[in-house]
Amino acid sequence: MKIVIVGGVAAGPKVAARVMRINPEAEVTVVEKGEFLSYAGCGLPYYVSGVVKEQAELMSTPVGVVRDSVFFQKVKNFEVLNAVEATDIDLKNRKVGIKGLGDGAASAVLDYDKLVLCTGSKPVIPPLPGIELDGVHKLYGVEDAEAIKEKLAGQKALDVVIVGGGLIGVEVTEALVESGCRVTIVEMQSQIMTMLDPEMAKQVELHMESKGVKVLTGTRLQSIQGEDGKVSGVTTDKGEFKAEMVIMSVGVRPNVDLAKAAGLSIGVTGGILVDNQMRTSDPDVYAAGDCVEMTHIVTGKPCYVPLGSTANKQGRVAANNICGRKDTWPGVLGSTVCKVFDFCVSATGLSESRAKAEGYETETVIVPGPDKPHFMPGAKPLILKLIADKKTRKLLGAQAVGMGDGDKRINVAVMALTCRMSVDDLAQVDLCYAPPYSPAMDNILTAANVLRNKLDGLIKGIRAEEVKAWQNRGDEFTFLDVRSPAEFEEVSIPGTKLIPLGKLRTALDEIPRDKPVAAFCKISLRGYEAALILNAAGYKDVYVMDGGVAVWPYEKKTL
Amino acid sequence: MKIVIVGGVAAGPKVAARVMRINPEAEVTVVEKGEFLSYAGCGLPYYVSGVVKEQAELMSTPVGVVRDSVFFQKVKNFEVLNAVEATDIDLKNRKVGIKGLGDGAASAVLDYDKLVLCTGSKPVIPPLPGIELDGVHKLYGVEDAEAIKEKLAGQKALDVVIVGGGLIGVEVTEALVESGCRVTIVEMQSQIMTMLDPEMAKQVELHMESKGVKVLTGTRLQSIQGEDGKVSGVTTDKGEFKAEMVIMSVGVRPNVDLAKAAGLSIGVTGGILVDNQMRTSDPDVYAAGDCVEMTHIVTGKPCYVPLGSTANKQGRVAANNICGRKDTWPGVLGSTVCKVFDFCVSATGLSESRAKAEGYETETVIVPGPDKPHFMPGAKPLILKLIADKKTRKLLGAQAVGMGDGDKRINVAVMALTCRMSVDDLAQVDLCYAPPYSPAMDNILTAANVLRNKLDGLIKGIRAEEVKAWQNRGDEFTFLDVRSPAEFEEVSIPGTKLIPLGKLRTALDEIPRDKPVAAFCKISLRGYEAALILNAAGYKDVYVMDGGVAVWPYEKKTL
Repeated sequence: MKIVIVGGVAAGPKVAARVMRINPEAEVTVVEKGEFLSYAGCGLPYYVSGVVKEQAELMSTPVGVVRDSVFFQKVKNFEVLNAVEATDIDLKNRKVGIKGLGDGAASAVLDYDKLVLCTGSKPVIPPLPGIELDGVHKLYGVEDAEAIKEKLAGQKALDVVIVGGGLIGVEVTEALVESGCRVTIVEMQSQIMTMLDPEMAKQVELHMESKGVKVLTGTRLQSIQGEDGKVSGVTTDKGEFKAEMVIMSVGVRPNVDLAKAAGLSIGVTGGILVDNQMRTSDPDVYAAGDCVEMTHIVTGKPCYVPLGSTANKQGRVAANNICGRKDTWPGVLGSTVCKVFDFCVSATGLSESRAKAEGYETETVIVPGPDKPHFMPGAKPLILKLIADKKTRKLLGAQAVGMGDGDKRINVAVMALTCRMSVDDLAQVDLCYAPPYSPAMDNILTAANVLRNKLDGLIKGIRAEEVKAWQNRGDEFTFLDVRSPAEFEEVSIPGTKLIPLGKLRTALDEIPRDKPVAAFCKISLRGYEAALILNAAGYKDVYVMDGGVAVWPYEKKTL
Repeated sequence: MKIVIVGGVAAGPKVAARVMRINPEAEVTVVEKGEFLSYAGCGLPYYVSGVVKEQAELMSTPVGVVRDSVFFQKVKNFEVLNAVEATDIDLKNRKVGIKGLGDGAASAVLDYDKLVLCTGSKPVIPPLPGIELDGVHKLYGVEDAEAIKEKLAGQKALDVVIVGGGLIGVEVTEALVESGCRVTIVEMQSQIMTMLDPEMAKQVELHMESKGVKVLTGTRLQSIQGEDGKVSGVTTDKGEFKAEMVIMSVGVRPNVDLAKAAGLSIGVTGGILVDNQMRTSDPDVYAAGDCVEMTHIVTGKPCYVPLGSTANKQGRVAANNICGRKDTWPGVLGSTVCKVFDFCVSATGLSESRAKAEGYETETVIVPGPDKPHFMPGAKPLILKLIADKKTRKLLGAQAVGMGDGDKRINVAVMALTCRMSVDDLAQVDLCYAPPYSPAMDNILTAANVLRNKLDGLIKGIRAEEVKAWQNRGDEFTFLDVRSPAEFEEVSIPGTKLIPLGKLRTALDEIPRDKPVAAFCKISLRGYEAALILNAAGYKDVYVMDGGVAVWPYEKKTL
């Protein structure tokens, strides 16, 4: 069996290695356009920052063997044609045209029984005035990382504008700040990190700003200015900014030119259309990795979420099916984790905004809390948000931001989403517990229980931004802080009334019965207790403000 | 509705608070024998070590409010009778007899509509000669922790014998070593931590020994010696040991005296028999927490796994059902995590030994590896073991030991077990990935894939102890190390033949075809590649040694 694989970065080598494992007789050839093979693209921000010292580490096995053509031939017994481009596919006669990219390199034609397209993605570079200037970078391949490192070497306090507040943009920000750069993020949308809901993204923006990063949301880049061919600044619809370096990170799109030209079907998201066995519209052609359209597990609809982890898994599924071992790919949840300075930012499934756009009637909860028992010195704050479907009570999505172990909780949500679990079942799960690792009731279990209370109508939630709107409109309501006087003195929200929880039952005459009450505490668990007491006392319009002082993103009075 | 709750440590206060939340009209009384209420029992080892500074922290809310009777009355609106014992239950007339424990305290009778027994567990104290000596401790309640702390204060290099190598035993060991004690663990069974399989427990034993702790397995305590009423040593079937302190931690059993005397049904494990709504054999009596028998989710059989996290969840289920909101308790998996010096030790579901005893035909895999990409400086080693049912391919259990983030992976296994997932489905899950948090293919996904390869017959595994037995018997076989010469020089296993993986295809004449081959590397992923090459070359009897050098527990040659 002759198998030709186009692409040698992530999915390609996986397909090749897996085919050889199942079927050692196969003849496998990988065609890779670039110089670099099988590198860890997600490691690039850490190469820029110097956390990863050597380029070679990104493309080596855990014991330091570089995964180059020689390695693949010797160990995996498949051939890699480096610096060779696939130019065209003849589906009918099962042939791929290839062309060497070196000087005087020749063209050739490869026969195949099965062809696998792992052509990856390419960065989106908007055709803006000045985009060609020296100092305008992207961070997509190893070469890009080298170019940024070179520019940084020896220079400090560079003014850098990062265009796009997605994953790559925020990941590289930390590396730049550590190198002494003054970073401004320019994001067209009204928030960074759109896998998060706005109030969660706000927490990340505030954290970045606390590290000296200017975050400009709702801001559109219009042009890049230069002097002597070198970047000197950018112009946006909100003003001009100095810049000695500009990094474009506005996203990637699937690289489907070859597939399109061959007449293979392309999906609505622009990725190659594949079935759940990773087969394209031609039964002898498979595709895997960043070049394919994916299916979202929650919605069942097409989506495009290019990730190295997915490429690896899809490569295995494609190889299994090519070798006659039926295997199916279940789809993706868009699971993400990202380090943003001291914050772990993680999400999976649908955001509340996305869920609403998909037509779900949602209930949500935001529960901040320490990620270990409060009495353990290593406990760190973590804000968890869960989104559920009101009708089925099934979990739809989860988000975590903060210094605590967020991805540990989001991975639990990933499993719950994969198994289409209700929040009721999630709340009962027998997760591991010991004080050095988590509270007795893990953060995600507490969040699931609060969400059950909301779904059951035991409490009504209200968001910080809704309460702020009441304040701005001058609505009459009691904004009830039930923390202790000491906590209140340390930090408080303007316009609130302090009645510590322990005194609430005996101080009801201080709270008008005919006006709404928005109760909260530090993280709003005491806020829930307060709402309970007020409801029991006959108050009719009581809300708990989600997340309490911990997620209030507006003005606060501090000591 | 009058509700009486016996027990105020974990499940009891949870039942009370939840009942009041749903039904503010209820009259709830909690009867607690002890002085301390609602404390975090699992935090006691960290109080002994001084990580937790104040006793009060163990019984306070996250914002420092102590959960005492006043707190419960003011905030939660239920009554707590402290230092009061429940003496007897009249099921027919729904009455509980109580008795104050103070001087001249009176007896009384409480009427109930619903009674909830949260009587907890009690430590097993074997009736050995010398057990009454001064210096023989347990670590069960706050008082025990105080007593140990007092003994340690100002004294260093105490000889301490810990009897029992279960969770409490190993958790308190670290605290004692940090206080300067010389600790010996005496364990009757052939391994410590029986939630782990022997080869995984062995890794923990080796780690403890590297910290100066003597671990004596298969050793039975016979008596405790004293001088002037104070402990001076212990006698075991393997010899005598000096001891200035002895800590008994041989387990706990459910505290069911009250339930038994009242005629409530007791299960085969000795816990109070409850249905999945936490109702006992009397429809008006519920029970929750450490005093009840539980159901194991994987086997569906009774088990007894007392844990604070379970008590909390069961308390909520009992309260919901008492208030007419149907809720069911799904059972437990025996999920555990435990810090042992620098190791995180974690497990869930069935161990291989337990699964076999339950009649499953198992396939297992042991996959060591870094818990983050090898190129990230913070990567730490983690050994994962998965156990699956050969017939259904469903996951049965998972274990993790090592310095890496074990519980993060075991929590994923918890979810897989809860949803009765196959290892095939587990391998495809869209877990979060970024270099600061995990490898692109998370450790548990890699382990699941290797397990799939085994279940598919692509590779045959063999354990270190089986290979060791071949060596001991003098069997002829090739013990094939496929690492690099540099790795081999650093550490190697006696009796092996080194052929680096890259050279294997051209060195087959060095490996006899008529003898078995046991291949391995550092962690045995290259071992799998080697087996693949040998199988493809026509070798018939090729094994991969699970876990490679990383889990070989016998003699090694080091630089």
